[in-house]
Amino acid sequence: MTSFNLDAYLNAQQQRVEALLLSRTEEVASKVPPRLLESMRYSLMAGGKRLRPVLCLSFAEAVLKQSTVSRVVEDCACALEFIHTYSLVHDDLPAMDDDDLRRGRPTNHKVYGEAMAILTGDSLLTDAFALVAGGPEPVRAALCRELAEGSGSWGMVGGQVLDIADDRLANIDYLTRLHRMKTGALIRAACRMGVLSAGGDEDALRRADIYGDAVGLAFQIADDVLDVTGDASSLGKPVGADAAAGRFTFPAVLGLEESKQLAASKVAEAIAAVRTLEPGDGPLAALARYSVERSS
Amino acid sequence: MTSFNLDAYLNAQQQRVEALLLSRTEEVASKVPPRLLESMRYSLMAGGKRLRPVLCLSFAEAVLKQSTVSRVVEDCACALEFIHTYSLVHDDLPAMDDDDLRRGRPTNHKVYGEAMAILTGDSLLTDAFALVAGGPEPVRAALCRELAEGSGSWGMVGGQVLDIADDRLANIDYLTRLHRMKTGALIRAACRMGVLSAGGDEDALRRADIYGDAVGLAFQIADDVLDVTGDASSLGKPVGADAAAGRFTFPAVLGLEESKQLAASKVAEAIAAVRTLEPGDGPLAALARYSVERSS
Repeated sequence: MTSFNLDAYLNAQQQRVEALLLSRTEEVASKVPPRLLESMRYSLMAGGKRLRPVLCLSFAEAVLKQSTVSRVVEDCACALEFIHTYSLVHDDLPAMDDDDLRRGRPTNHKVYGEAMAILTGDSLLTDAFALVAGGPEPVRAALCRELAEGSGSWGMVGGQVLDIADDRLANIDYLTRLHRMKTGALIRAACRMGVLSAGGDEDALRRADIYGDAVGLAFQIADDVLDVTGDASSLGKPVGADAAAGRFTFPAVLGLEESKQLAASKVAEAIAAVRTLEPGDGPLAALARYSVERSS
Repeated sequence: MTSFNLDAYLNAQQQRVEALLLSRTEEVASKVPPRLLESMRYSLMAGGKRLRPVLCLSFAEAVLKQSTVSRVVEDCACALEFIHTYSLVHDDLPAMDDDDLRRGRPTNHKVYGEAMAILTGDSLLTDAFALVAGGPEPVRAALCRELAEGSGSWGMVGGQVLDIADDRLANIDYLTRLHRMKTGALIRAACRMGVLSAGGDEDALRRADIYGDAVGLAFQIADDVLDVTGDASSLGKPVGADAAAGRFTFPAVLGLEESKQLAASKVAEAIAAVRTLEPGDGPLAALARYSVERSS
């Protein structure tokens, strides 16, 4: 078994995504009010794991058997990061989580004000669809549908509503549904969009679906576990913040050990699903493991 | 010249749009958290002129020469109202216009709280694209592009940013650009989407473009004029509210008479553009006149 170097791969893909984000925003710069463009880029270029675009690129590469991808794939990768970024900008607002810092930098509304932060999020969300729909290829309609379903009222935003609901339930079914929607739906969409934008077949799409669902859940369980066992300096926030905020977490509902076991079984399920797409040890298997083995 | 009965037409189209909005939200109801669905519907079903969906339907009907339209057209009509409604929900937020009432009813955030109002707007915005992308027809990609470009950072949201900018300019060029983006871009998209979704040709699309641009601007000028000359009970807000809020308006920049003349010339331009699409006096000409002759 070859040893796949995930660090180098992730680093290269993250740089690729960041170059794409700069280039796509540059293409429309002359039409966008300068202050809005600045604010969008402030949040887009604030670092992060770029997990969703990397998953999209990696699935496209697995389907194409090469690292060169079409503009459609790149547009999808950027759009996924636009959506993820808008969700962070809106999440940080005073009426939501009221966070002053994100990855060690002042949050968007601390720099640009609340009104601009709302509009910046709205722009990133809308422009994500302009990116995905921005070309003549007929597949772009299906890609818009994937993106919208992963991020709308029965995807990510629906999950956020379940997360802030007064009548939320401290049981595993509610927690699983919440996170399948809040985090899982967009991660799943990222995997499916990678396959679709690269012209993959039904079997590849089904495998991306299983992988995305499993990795999405594993990723969130790992987040909750890190909040209990992690290191504050790696996390960039205090350990135990979820518990202090009265959040339902997997460790709180299942216990720490059972949570870790559930995450590990999800990783195994994800890796099994993509074995035919990726023979040997490649980025998809490594990314699945990374979803729970990271330190932040 | 036949006398077209706009009141009856508008009334029928508004009822049709409202039935479609209920039906489309019903179709996804089982997947959406109930409180979110309720909040989305609270704002969607709060009345209003339904101008954007009506323009979309009317252009589709003009292209098809019949009032029966396909599901693609109806999806576009609903999506346009989803986008318009989300923009009102976010505009009313405390960090934006801080309005307690909209059309005589408490604004979304007064009923559901700020966090839910932000998420409700995000849902409506995202689900608009799920509607437009929600079928197998290849034209849906182009329709998503029209909707995104009309409402994103170089369309509606970009215009809102220009409207709240500290360095905004009290001259006609700035004011025209602002309103072309803030109100005009989505109205233009509504007209173009009506043509595209009905399979209209390039000539019809070009005519919809000219009409939409002219009606969009006329509509906004009329809004500003009504703020000076209107009747508070029809408007549902005090006369002179724009001036009191220090807003740049067409009457403030051009004077009242020149503003009215500009609006009238835009209406004439719009009607001339659609003459070949609509021989005689029909809904498109009547809607263009209505854009400036309304009382609210």
